[in-house]
Amino acid sequence: MSKVTVIAGVGPGNGAAFARRFAQGGHALGLLARSAQMVEGLAAELQAGGAQSLGVPVDLTDAAAVADAFQHIRRKLGDADVLIQNAAGGLRAPFLDTPVEAYREGFELCVMAMVHCCRAVLPAMLARGAGTIVLSGATAAMRGSAGFSAFAVGKFGQRALAQSLAREFGPQGVHVAHVNIDGVIGTPRNVQRLADKPPEFFLQPADIAEAYWTLAEQPRSAWSQEIDLRPFGERF
Amino acid sequence: MSKVTVIAGVGPGNGAAFARRFAQGGHALGLLARSAQMVEGLAAELQAGGAQSLGVPVDLTDAAAVADAFQHIRRKLGDADVLIQNAAGGLRAPFLDTPVEAYREGFELCVMAMVHCCRAVLPAMLARGAGTIVLSGATAAMRGSAGFSAFAVGKFGQRALAQSLAREFGPQGVHVAHVNIDGVIGTPRNVQRLADKPPEFFLQPADIAEAYWTLAEQPRSAWSQEIDLRPFGERF
Amino acid sequence: MSKVTVIAGVGPGNGAAFARRFAQGGHALGLLARSAQMVEGLAAELQAGGAQSLGVPVDLTDAAAVADAFQHIRRKLGDADVLIQNAAGGLRAPFLDTPVEAYREGFELCVMAMVHCCRAVLPAMLARGAGTIVLSGATAAMRGSAGFSAFAVGKFGQRALAQSLAREFGPQGVHVAHVNIDGVIGTPRNVQRLADKPPEFFLQPADIAEAYWTLAEQPRSAWSQEIDLRPFGERF
Amino acid sequence: MSKVTVIAGVGPGNGAAFARRFAQGGHALGLLARSAQMVEGLAAELQAGGAQSLGVPVDLTDAAAVADAFQHIRRKLGDADVLIQNAAGGLRAPFLDTPVEAYREGFELCVMAMVHCCRAVLPAMLARGAGTIVLSGATAAMRGSAGFSAFAVGKFGQRALAQSLAREFGPQGVHVAHVNIDGVIGTPRNVQRLADKPPEFFLQPADIAEAYWTLAEQPRSAWSQEIDLRPFGERF
Repeated sequence: MSKVTVIAGVGPGNGAAFARRFAQGGHALGLLARSAQMVEGLAAELQAGGAQSLGVPVDLTDAAAVADAFQHIRRKLGDADVLIQNAAGGLRAPFLDTPVEAYREGFELCVMAMVHCCRAVLPAMLARGAGTIVLSGATAAMRGSAGFSAFAVGKFGQRALAQSLAREFGPQGVHVAHVNIDGVIGTPRNVQRLADKPPEFFLQPADIAEAYWTLAEQPRSAWSQEIDLRPFGERF
Repeated sequence: MSKVTVIAGVGPGNGAAFARRFAQGGHALGLLARSAQMVEGLAAELQAGGAQSLGVPVDLTDAAAVADAFQHIRRKLGDADVLIQNAAGGLRAPFLDTPVEAYREGFELCVMAMVHCCRAVLPAMLARGAGTIVLSGATAAMRGSAGFSAFAVGKFGQRALAQSLAREFGPQGVHVAHVNIDGVIGTPRNVQRLADKPPEFFLQPADIAEAYWTLAEQPRSAWSQEIDLRPFGERF
Repeated sequence: MSKVTVIAGVGPGNGAAFARRFAQGGHALGLLARSAQMVEGLAAELQAGGAQSLGVPVDLTDAAAVADAFQHIRRKLGDADVLIQNAAGGLRAPFLDTPVEAYREGFELCVMAMVHCCRAVLPAMLARGAGTIVLSGATAAMRGSAGFSAFAVGKFGQRALAQSLAREFGPQGVHVAHVNIDGVIGTPRNVQRLADKPPEFFLQPADIAEAYWTLAEQPRSAWSQEIDLRPFGERF
Repeated sequence: MSKVTVIAGVGPGNGAAFARRFAQGGHALGLLARSAQMVEGLAAELQAGGAQSLGVPVDLTDAAAVADAFQHIRRKLGDADVLIQNAAGGLRAPFLDTPVEAYREGFELCVMAMVHCCRAVLPAMLARGAGTIVLSGATAAMRGSAGFSAFAVGKFGQRALAQSLAREFGPQGVHVAHVNIDGVIGTPRNVQRLADKPPEFFLQPADIAEAYWTLAEQPRSAWSQEIDLRPFGERF
């Protein structure tokens, strides 16, 4: 029976790349995102390529809906072996122009969505004594900046969650890792928006996905809990 | 006219010590906490000692109530020169036993309360090109641990806020600092609970307060944005 | 023609594991260590397995000898595509019992040996616009501790070198990474010395080597500059 | 009898400012630097202001000379209560243009000089169960950068020493602190060299000195082990 990977937050960039990489590795894929069109389109693409997959449209900040979505995946594909968090959010604006709701939205999307997903997958992972959970961080998870207060609050909180889970569940066989994606991802939208930047300025989603696959395959005597990913061409 | 310090989150330990230290330095004190008895008792003590002070019972997570409280302080004492954040919260429990509401409560108390307070004091600070905001961190603001996920999420988020505000408002003359209080504070309750520990195990609130006073007095060519405070006797 | 990996500091634990993993990946191996018996024995083992390899006994702290050793490897195997630093040293003792020479020895072994090696391999890597350099860190590269001053000084210095090289040579196509091996490596000697520890307490050299291989194979749009490796079973 | 502060590395910027601040606080001053003119001139200035002081020209990287210098200070002024490290060095150059000796020079000046000084002052500090040692760090103590390899190696090493000493000697009553002076110090030479920068770009030595004085006066229940100092006007 195939291993099962669930991706929480699927878009046309990293999320789709994660799905393709894990499908290529023989995993069945559960795909979660708000957009039915997105998850169902990607599920169809993966199935056409021979991979079991299931798209479930869901609001990741809705605890009950998340529980239902995982229940649905469990029945169709089995328990998750790998959970990848790929949702992000948080307005970028000067502090006094940032509505208070922007902090809550960033928090719900970065932290609470992951709490809901982890509560769904951890019991089976702990029962098996195995599993991998990868959280997608960003520069804003490592340091705050002017104009990034709402975004940084969510990303810092998510890293706190990653570290706390890693320390609690590592000794029980569940690998929790935080990836600091420290640069601009080469999604079509970003490449167009930053048309003056050379290709080496961007992180390629397929290359990011390779690092996530590696984390899921790491032998447990030598797990990485925090890695960074940076495009070689950026001077920083 | 006296400088004005507002303490957001006044209890019998650090909050009271901050109030006494800044009163001793000649500041008028605005004291915020949920408990009317706490803030009014401390205000009375400070007034008996000759310091202007005003206790305002308020739920710091209620944006409108916080705005009203600062409006009240402004009318009675003037605009805040110094804002000290001293609220903390967040359940300590195994992840799967932590109710999802515990994350939101920690977030509201650690992050949103401070967002509300900063929105109240920053306009006048920016108009004057001067002011100090100090946020009270903890070990859990620096790294996550097993059983501390809800607490760490809030404290990490608070540090993200501190760093973002520091970088945005520093060049406009407002000093924002994060203090990692890295140990157990010698409140009566902690001293009793940890009766087997020697006195040097604990941080004394009056000594913590001294460090906050120093931050508020730092000349602006050499501001500290992050400091730690640790009791000398703890081996770590 | 095979890619060439040079391992600076070959012992029976990690060094040998790195050599075996890169040989398995089709690389020719240059093996450097003080002990002729060690490097020649390992070279013979690898050759018996079909891998080109060359053991060169050398004192890595001797600049001229290091230059000669790399010249020798270049003539026999070609320019290095990958350089792995695996030397460590530094007495562990109370500060006042640590002879001043212990700091210099740690510094020569951790920092200067790597400076000599990097000066030997970088010109060809820069000419090709490609190459990988991996430095082996430890907990003591991240924080100092009582009794570890000489060791920490060397390992911190080595991480400073790694970060400086990463930022200088990354944009020219050379990947420099620092690996924090954050635990006790399961060498025969350590396993015997810590006989009361369960197997999951130790990092296995072969598993560490897998992470190094991954770093050497990372696509350059998403390079890791710092990763940690920790055994799942250690509570920290 | 006066407390005694020894400053290891006295120049016209920070070193002189430290001396003036601690003299103002009633300390007797031992002043160490290579230049007899510098230390004797400053000693004369302090004596004219009423402060006991002694300038001792010494090469801080010469262990025996450092031991003699402290012996001389001990006889004239008494044992050191405070030791301030203010020496720095390390060439800034591209890696392949950095002579190997530059690493050793940086290491001797940043690390070994401090090892020699600490060995001289710690026995008496431990006997009394009190004392303060402050090390002067820089941005390069926190992260490596292109062209800063030799400088960063020394400054990282110095921070490793600071952390190791702090953890070893803190519980015995000796406060060891590392100050990250994170910006450009407003020495006459820097102000002239960077004439296009506004005054708020620079850290003022007298303001830095104030932070050191505060560290020396901190009550031991709440010691800072690491603080940063940054000029308010720099955007970073």
